[in-house]
Amino acid sequence: MRKPKKPNKQTQKTSSTMQTQRIILSGSGGQGVITAAIILAEAAVLYEDLNAVQTQSYGPESRGGATRADVIISDAPIYYPKVEQPNLAACLTQEAYNRYSRSIRPGGLLLTDRHYVRQDPRIDAHQVPLDMHETVMKEIGNPIVLNICMLGALIGLTVLIRPESVAHVLERRVPAEFLDMNRMALQTGLDMVTKMTR
Amino acid sequence: MRKPKKPNKQTQKTSSTMQTQRIILSGSGGQGVITAAIILAEAAVLYEDLNAVQTQSYGPESRGGATRADVIISDAPIYYPKVEQPNLAACLTQEAYNRYSRSIRPGGLLLTDRHYVRQDPRIDAHQVPLDMHETVMKEIGNPIVLNICMLGALIGLTVLIRPESVAHVLERRVPAEFLDMNRMALQTGLDMVTKMTR
Repeated sequence: MRKPKKPNKQTQKTSSTMQTQRIILSGSGGQGVITAAIILAEAAVLYEDLNAVQTQSYGPESRGGATRADVIISDAPIYYPKVEQPNLAACLTQEAYNRYSRSIRPGGLLLTDRHYVRQDPRIDAHQVPLDMHETVMKEIGNPIVLNICMLGALIGLTVLIRPESVAHVLERRVPAEFLDMNRMALQTGLDMVTKMTR
Repeated sequence: MRKPKKPNKQTQKTSSTMQTQRIILSGSGGQGVITAAIILAEAAVLYEDLNAVQTQSYGPESRGGATRADVIISDAPIYYPKVEQPNLAACLTQEAYNRYSRSIRPGGLLLTDRHYVRQDPRIDAHQVPLDMHETVMKEIGNPIVLNICMLGALIGLTVLIRPESVAHVLERRVPAEFLDMNRMALQTGLDMVTKMTR
């Protein structure tokens, strides 16, 4: 299903046998992390010919208010769908950060939002704090698409999947009147990390 | 978090050590089965003091158009989150039925919609075909809440969770302007099976 296109820095796959990506997206109830996880999984499966599993595990801790959504993406079959040690994580609240940042694999990528999260320097991860909330509010004016901005930053920081694949899923899932706002949020997230890595 | 209330036929729990419920909700992309699965899992966790895991497993088969969402609900910890043999399943399209009805545990409950699915009598399950689509269109006039009607029927047919718990999740998740429609759909599903079992 993938259209042929010239590879560039942001879209090039490093190898046909990719490292399995274990991802935790976390935040509070209204921030749309489950939606972001579903979009990410669908993009990987429908437009990247990969396998994906997307899970919400609700134990006693989920009654506290932290929401967590797991995604595993792989070019091999996925037998165990729960993420124990993510190599990628995003935390959109301090509570989610306090709860999940310690489970990250050493050297893993940990994306946070400066508006919500104060980092703990003792965490053994590549911590990337971004002003996603502030930028979304300034450039789009609606906090509802913070989750899509986060997705843009996450895929911009990794070689996980192509931005176009996420855009295709947005076109399928998002009501027409909100599509432009979601596209802008995706691009905003991508731009924030492109500026960083240049 | 549960408020005390008199037990009645629809809400009474049979035992404090419940049978683990393994559920597959399936249909096509736009029918909201993933949303229904998330609502069911959240209702069980937030308002019934149960554990739940909700999973989307996307393999090569998911590119065909059938959507599948798994939910496991238990009063014990859940170690393996994927559903192999459900004891409850709902199929909202023929394709989903053809793909998933055979995996049901012998004697399990299999809910279908007569508008979309023609049953195979060879399936070893308690098959319950309902006119959910037709009833939703007649009484509510919008097919978008078929998934919530299905949820109403499913919890009405089992002692899974209380309808009020699903209603509470709807109040948290559904935008105000759509809440009444969703409440009506839940009640419609419950009424359809209450009539049946009387």
